[in-house]
Amino acid sequence: MTSSATVMVKLGERSYPINIGAGTLDKIGARLQELKLGRRIAVITNPVVGRFYRDSVARSLKNAGFDVTLLEVPDGEEHKNLAWLAFLYDRLVDARLDRDCAIIALGGGVIGDLTGFTAATFQRGVPFIQVPTTLLAQVDSSVGGKTAVNHPGGKNLIGAFHQPRLVWIDVATLKTLPRREVQAGMTEIIKHAAILGPALFDLLEEKLEAVMRLDEELLIEVVRQNCAIKAAVVGEDERESGYRAVLNFGHTVGHAIEMLTEYRTYLHGEAVAIGVAFAARLSHARGLCAASVRDRIIALLERAGLPTEIPADLIGRHLALAVEADKKVSGGKVKFVCIEDIGRSRFEYLTGDEVLSIAGGTH
Amino acid sequence: MTSSATVMVKLGERSYPINIGAGTLDKIGARLQELKLGRRIAVITNPVVGRFYRDSVARSLKNAGFDVTLLEVPDGEEHKNLAWLAFLYDRLVDARLDRDCAIIALGGGVIGDLTGFTAATFQRGVPFIQVPTTLLAQVDSSVGGKTAVNHPGGKNLIGAFHQPRLVWIDVATLKTLPRREVQAGMTEIIKHAAILGPALFDLLEEKLEAVMRLDEELLIEVVRQNCAIKAAVVGEDERESGYRAVLNFGHTVGHAIEMLTEYRTYLHGEAVAIGVAFAARLSHARGLCAASVRDRIIALLERAGLPTEIPADLIGRHLALAVEADKKVSGGKVKFVCIEDIGRSRFEYLTGDEVLSIAGGTH
Repeated sequence: MTSSATVMVKLGERSYPINIGAGTLDKIGARLQELKLGRRIAVITNPVVGRFYRDSVARSLKNAGFDVTLLEVPDGEEHKNLAWLAFLYDRLVDARLDRDCAIIALGGGVIGDLTGFTAATFQRGVPFIQVPTTLLAQVDSSVGGKTAVNHPGGKNLIGAFHQPRLVWIDVATLKTLPRREVQAGMTEIIKHAAILGPALFDLLEEKLEAVMRLDEELLIEVVRQNCAIKAAVVGEDERESGYRAVLNFGHTVGHAIEMLTEYRTYLHGEAVAIGVAFAARLSHARGLCAASVRDRIIALLERAGLPTEIPADLIGRHLALAVEADKKVSGGKVKFVCIEDIGRSRFEYLTGDEVLSIAGGTH
Repeated sequence: MTSSATVMVKLGERSYPINIGAGTLDKIGARLQELKLGRRIAVITNPVVGRFYRDSVARSLKNAGFDVTLLEVPDGEEHKNLAWLAFLYDRLVDARLDRDCAIIALGGGVIGDLTGFTAATFQRGVPFIQVPTTLLAQVDSSVGGKTAVNHPGGKNLIGAFHQPRLVWIDVATLKTLPRREVQAGMTEIIKHAAILGPALFDLLEEKLEAVMRLDEELLIEVVRQNCAIKAAVVGEDERESGYRAVLNFGHTVGHAIEMLTEYRTYLHGEAVAIGVAFAARLSHARGLCAASVRDRIIALLERAGLPTEIPADLIGRHLALAVEADKKVSGGKVKFVCIEDIGRSRFEYLTGDEVLSIAGGTH
């Protein structure tokens, strides 16, 4: 029997627990009974995740006395849009769900974002539960209440802050996750460790391969530490008015790369891995961190099988423009997260050209 | 020179002022400079209201240094839907508005609800300013942060709570409001007075005709008292988890009548006037209030030229069902607001048949 862990996200009346365990998916019904929800619950998933887990989640909910409506959206970021949002509203209305219902997201970041926004806006907001089944969602996107859909004008352009009532993480679900997505999920773990988790960074340096082999005890501990880091940041700055932007470490260049490759070449975590490596190099180049800090970060990304170099064909003026197009811009300068040491970061306000000044060189 | 008044809505960090004046529309730019907004502002209105007021609002904003994007949605409740919401998102993106923008609603309840929901969800929420130009919006819908669009499955089914940063009321705009809408707006005023404003009720009994002739000094005072009542209720229960439902006095039957007449026969305020009169009769029939309380309420509605009787062809089983279909239902019983005295109300939990038990009889 493996252990389990709980992390609290402290946001006053919007506080909620994150439960991390292994093989806990079929215990969710019993846990939800404690939350004083209405009887009707909608579970939103996609066919890829649903095939593995919808039956056990639905059975657990039914055994706990809930009336379950199961809805599926096709797999993929391209379905995180207003059209599928409208589809979900229609199905919730068809199922006669009212303001006393609750909505569960069963899947990765796309399902979490789309379902979360649905829950934020259906009946002016109904209780929402995250059941993340990808590593990226378990260590990052399921925590913190950011929900959104994409718009042709930009990713996550339409959305809301809507905190879940519970995040229910079963690390055993990672066994069905493609290897490439396990790797991509490692980026956010390494990012959290680099900016805010020196002890986690040491643990990863020691046991990265065991984590990636999905050792359950170790995974629970790694996911717990990540959720604790994310929870602390969100607790400080729920709506990203300032400090929360520290979590964008690696994301400025990562987003620019995703945009220039039209979201086709890289998974989000892969593009961000390049961005994290880049931010480490830039921090060193600007005299903010030691070479050893830069090298430890890049070495860990490489051990996880992640890319760390900007592809040569992307370097140039268009990359600088893409960096400036990132939405964390104020007064023409990008709020860029630099690293000073493992566990310590700072914001630098830079133009796109200043950011890219080291691109094209070596580290 | 007429007076002006300010009412604060106290919601912690989401607190905001309601300014009530006459001839103040062209001073909004100067006022918004104090709010530390970004430079870009979108003004959303409809052609009917826009024809009278968009130029003066836009000029005031430009003179104050704002970059103004003017957007129009056709007039009418039938445009408060997801399609026009998507239209607004597209135009905001076209205008390159980012998370530092602000959005102003210039119009009545439909524009306020649609614009508010746009502001609640564009870029995960941007600052929102209400400039209500109908009596209903000035005394009720612009205050309290309820935003929504309709869905074929129900009115206001998709929405969010998103408090404005400022409500800027110019009672002089009521001079262009059709007489029938002035009457309909009186319903919410009489409702507020009946449940929570005995002094306002006395004032209305004394000076209703002068209010309806749009005497500016008097209007400012009446609107101020209404906003103070609404602000106090919203301050107690922002998200309608309980007490705020007191504002539904008259609305249970009002909504049922609107639904059965497919929103075509009555303005909202007219249907609710029938509902308020009905609730007064039911309260008396159940022994909760004196006949004089019932009669004073109905007399005031009639002086305002509002309907107070359920049309004979609507009475019957379908009305009871429509009452039960109202969304403030829990456990098959409707949370019905009854009145005990002018200024004092209580909730009664009733079935549709119990609600309609007095329909068909006389008062």
